[in-house]
Amino acid sequence: MRRPAFLVAGGDLRQLYTARALLPEGSVSVLGFDENVNLPEGLERLDSMELSGKRADYLVLPMPVTEDGVLVHAPFARHSIPVAGLPGLVKADGAVFGGRIHPAVRKVFDGGAAVVDYYQREELSVLNAVPTAEGAIQIAMEELATTIYGQNVLVTGFGRISKVLVRILTAMGAHVTVTARKYQDLAWAEISGCRAVHISRLEETLPGYDLVFNTVPAVLLDEARLWKLRSDALIIDLASKPGGVDFDTASRLGRKTVWALSLPGKVAPITAGDMIACTIRNILKERSFADD
Amino acid sequence: MRRPAFLVAGGDLRQLYTARALLPEGSVSVLGFDENVNLPEGLERLDSMELSGKRADYLVLPMPVTEDGVLVHAPFARHSIPVAGLPGLVKADGAVFGGRIHPAVRKVFDGGAAVVDYYQREELSVLNAVPTAEGAIQIAMEELATTIYGQNVLVTGFGRISKVLVRILTAMGAHVTVTARKYQDLAWAEISGCRAVHISRLEETLPGYDLVFNTVPAVLLDEARLWKLRSDALIIDLASKPGGVDFDTASRLGRKTVWALSLPGKVAPITAGDMIACTIRNILKERSFADD
Amino acid sequence: MRRPAFLVAGGDLRQLYTARALLPEGSVSVLGFDENVNLPEGLERLDSMELSGKRADYLVLPMPVTEDGVLVHAPFARHSIPVAGLPGLVKADGAVFGGRIHPAVRKVFDGGAAVVDYYQREELSVLNAVPTAEGAIQIAMEELATTIYGQNVLVTGFGRISKVLVRILTAMGAHVTVTARKYQDLAWAEISGCRAVHISRLEETLPGYDLVFNTVPAVLLDEARLWKLRSDALIIDLASKPGGVDFDTASRLGRKTVWALSLPGKVAPITAGDMIACTIRNILKERSFADD
Amino acid sequence: MRRPAFLVAGGDLRQLYTARALLPEGSVSVLGFDENVNLPEGLERLDSMELSGKRADYLVLPMPVTEDGVLVHAPFARHSIPVAGLPGLVKADGAVFGGRIHPAVRKVFDGGAAVVDYYQREELSVLNAVPTAEGAIQIAMEELATTIYGQNVLVTGFGRISKVLVRILTAMGAHVTVTARKYQDLAWAEISGCRAVHISRLEETLPGYDLVFNTVPAVLLDEARLWKLRSDALIIDLASKPGGVDFDTASRLGRKTVWALSLPGKVAPITAGDMIACTIRNILKERSFADD
Repeated sequence: MRRPAFLVAGGDLRQLYTARALLPEGSVSVLGFDENVNLPEGLERLDSMELSGKRADYLVLPMPVTEDGVLVHAPFARHSIPVAGLPGLVKADGAVFGGRIHPAVRKVFDGGAAVVDYYQREELSVLNAVPTAEGAIQIAMEELATTIYGQNVLVTGFGRISKVLVRILTAMGAHVTVTARKYQDLAWAEISGCRAVHISRLEETLPGYDLVFNTVPAVLLDEARLWKLRSDALIIDLASKPGGVDFDTASRLGRKTVWALSLPGKVAPITAGDMIACTIRNILKERSFADD
Repeated sequence: MRRPAFLVAGGDLRQLYTARALLPEGSVSVLGFDENVNLPEGLERLDSMELSGKRADYLVLPMPVTEDGVLVHAPFARHSIPVAGLPGLVKADGAVFGGRIHPAVRKVFDGGAAVVDYYQREELSVLNAVPTAEGAIQIAMEELATTIYGQNVLVTGFGRISKVLVRILTAMGAHVTVTARKYQDLAWAEISGCRAVHISRLEETLPGYDLVFNTVPAVLLDEARLWKLRSDALIIDLASKPGGVDFDTASRLGRKTVWALSLPGKVAPITAGDMIACTIRNILKERSFADD
Repeated sequence: MRRPAFLVAGGDLRQLYTARALLPEGSVSVLGFDENVNLPEGLERLDSMELSGKRADYLVLPMPVTEDGVLVHAPFARHSIPVAGLPGLVKADGAVFGGRIHPAVRKVFDGGAAVVDYYQREELSVLNAVPTAEGAIQIAMEELATTIYGQNVLVTGFGRISKVLVRILTAMGAHVTVTARKYQDLAWAEISGCRAVHISRLEETLPGYDLVFNTVPAVLLDEARLWKLRSDALIIDLASKPGGVDFDTASRLGRKTVWALSLPGKVAPITAGDMIACTIRNILKERSFADD
Repeated sequence: MRRPAFLVAGGDLRQLYTARALLPEGSVSVLGFDENVNLPEGLERLDSMELSGKRADYLVLPMPVTEDGVLVHAPFARHSIPVAGLPGLVKADGAVFGGRIHPAVRKVFDGGAAVVDYYQREELSVLNAVPTAEGAIQIAMEELATTIYGQNVLVTGFGRISKVLVRILTAMGAHVTVTARKYQDLAWAEISGCRAVHISRLEETLPGYDLVFNTVPAVLLDEARLWKLRSDALIIDLASKPGGVDFDTASRLGRKTVWALSLPGKVAPITAGDMIACTIRNILKERSFADD
């Protein structure tokens, strides 16, 4: 069986690690990393979009692919990579992988190569919960003058990130409380070794926490609740915009708050790249099953 | 505030423990337990369906409520409890709780008391996974001449029961492999400390297991796969009918198989009763929120 | 290198599994298992102490080797195995392994083969804690009408068995309290996820427990303390004679008590045999290092 | 009962937290913290060794008490605290607590107040393992471009710090190997969910590790072994002087090594202070038992 050709175009360090992790699957070239960037062994560097006739089987784009729909996000590139030129990089019967794919990208491939958003794959979201949780705990360790051991910790919500967080925190000896709205989430939290408090009864417990991890993308920690937290409690907000904390009030009340976004690429780019590669491998396997 | 009156009608020991666990919520009577059955303290025994004019606010029925749609399941009752007579036991503006509710039951309450199936509550399914997993491990301990520690264990599927099973098995020092079809389930299995094998590659790993827990309600362990298991491997099937094992072939090949159904009521009736009561409490809380 | 010859003489099923687990190390014969006992594949059965001139390099005796100093403990033997005849079974420069070795056994080998008590090896005590803890939990599961999950459990002492017990119980979701006299044991108990109570303050906490595991070989649960336990609490005593419970008083007060001794051989003879074999292998490795 | 008077003299932030944590036990003054240092509420600052006649019941000194035997270690003091003056601070029938107590200190109290070294208390060593392990993991998180999850980690030795490290690392999803010399340590490591490799067979496994934590105070990672580690492996050495790594060779070979000493006071001074206070409380309790 012929080994397929991958082209990883644009992105930051994480994409280089994605590229490296794809090496067992085929040949891998990278575009958008100028000569000052050291490449992992085995990767071929392309200097421009001129492929001299050889198109890739699979084009791997970053997450997000593009902010403006015009240029691919490529912070390490000497020459910009226009979205309009992408179809010239990949075979018409090939496939394009990207994260949070802009409509303009889908449009240029209309009728050509299949376009798949790896960011919408549930297993990548699950896997990404791991570097997010580790990054959140690293921040807590750096900010606190105490151990995690023995602290009273509140985790809001019981989705993917919370489940991984709780697993580590309880093993470290924190006393963890989970608050959520659904009773099934509270049941899981208890089975996971936490105390569970329904969101409707959260207020009365607030003065007891040393550390709060928010994972709910809604302003759960509003002024009234921030007042009830101890003045030396640390809040780490992991929720995407608009975040889960009334930051202005938190700042006014002196409640220390860290809004930590996009942790996987920051704290563990190698792992984050591996996880994208793993997801792409899964997609390819499913496509080959479908072909059978 | 007036304390509500509960009436627990029919069912086995588990329902008596449900009744006991409801005592903090109001007065609790039980119907369908003859005088040879010792009642937990605080419960009032009713001998017949004649309530002398006092109807309950909440009627609690067993799981399943009835097999035939005519008589309530009441193995400890001296006198049978006809479904047709149930509306006389509860106020028209009250509520009826039951598990796997037969259409005939819904029909007699048509236009009267609200009928709620606690078995369809997600949190009860989550909670029930605990006695099921513990019961499965108890069976394994009783059947095996080895410890759980150090055994190579396969768990099929990664739903509620598997998640609890895996938590206990890994803490006991078993080497656990999870097989599933969805990549996100495999990702969770790895995060939970297991090896993950996609179902399409299960075959090659089968000779390695000492113990198999099946949770998938489809004949996953068919003749071809049973052949590949070692002759001294133990299979514990937790899947509801038709089960996940080709039992005839398993028997012919001498693969020891235990089909373990309805474990919560068997191994831990007190806990199982508590969990039903806890779910009923949650339903009542939600109804009171809705009233606000 | 010549493969050594092992002779496993006497003992119960556990010794057969020890014999089987030694097969990768050399040839293994067994003595004291009559023809009604099925032997694991690969073992050679000797019918009498007549070895026709071939003595073993290593003689493996059971635990305990003998009760009376005259006959080897051999419940499955047709013909008794006198201690006095043991030296004829093993080379004079060989080695004899046994558990809790009676002085009479040491005496007959005086000046001949080296005699090593595997029961005095620390790693065997550590390994044996695993089947003991699992067996104790199996008993609790069988006796209780609740899950282990959610129960308030007291563990007395924090030695080997307690450490393994606590690891499993906390993973199962029990709320575990450890009581001990040494502050360092209490510190470890807390790090292991338990509540720690100094023995001097145990009394006031006693009414709160559903389940008690005693591991301390001193009558810790005396009359005064038994009174304070709830009437439906279950006590599982794992301490060797005289045990840790005033059994007469417990019986009079109706406190349900299970005195569980020698669990490894009972609940997991295969594992218990493997562990003895593993310890013998370690001893042989150390002897070969010493020879270098 | 009269509340005793504590005097905390010298030391860094950790001693201030020790002082704060002693407040429930009595009145607490501090000496050796000039006015630029904010004191936790409830503490009284003494400006000089002139106590105007009021001597403390208990004098609490830092760890180490003194480097040179002449002056107490007091980095935040405006005026030095001579060892020779210490007896004037505490009643002759009182007690002096310090860590790693210099002979000169014992000498000045000869015939006077009892001198107790809290650093020799086993429970403090156990408790200190927690901030040490957390600090080590924080360093690993900061240094690595991967998650801890999924990494192959070697831990050398299986003492207090290793036990806590392993607990956290396995919960985080690292694949942990423990190497040690004693078979009982290897048995515990396996029970704790690790792979165990006897030190005599360590070499062959070395190329497999991403991360190494050394806890053994002997040069275990010598030139031959450093050669076998992968060039991108990270070594974190937690052993006290002389450390467990041949640092010169490591540097020459480009093996990244972090020698992390005295982590408790650095990463978690509050917890470290609490733990000293907890140990002092235990000592006082034992003294009161002894008095009974």
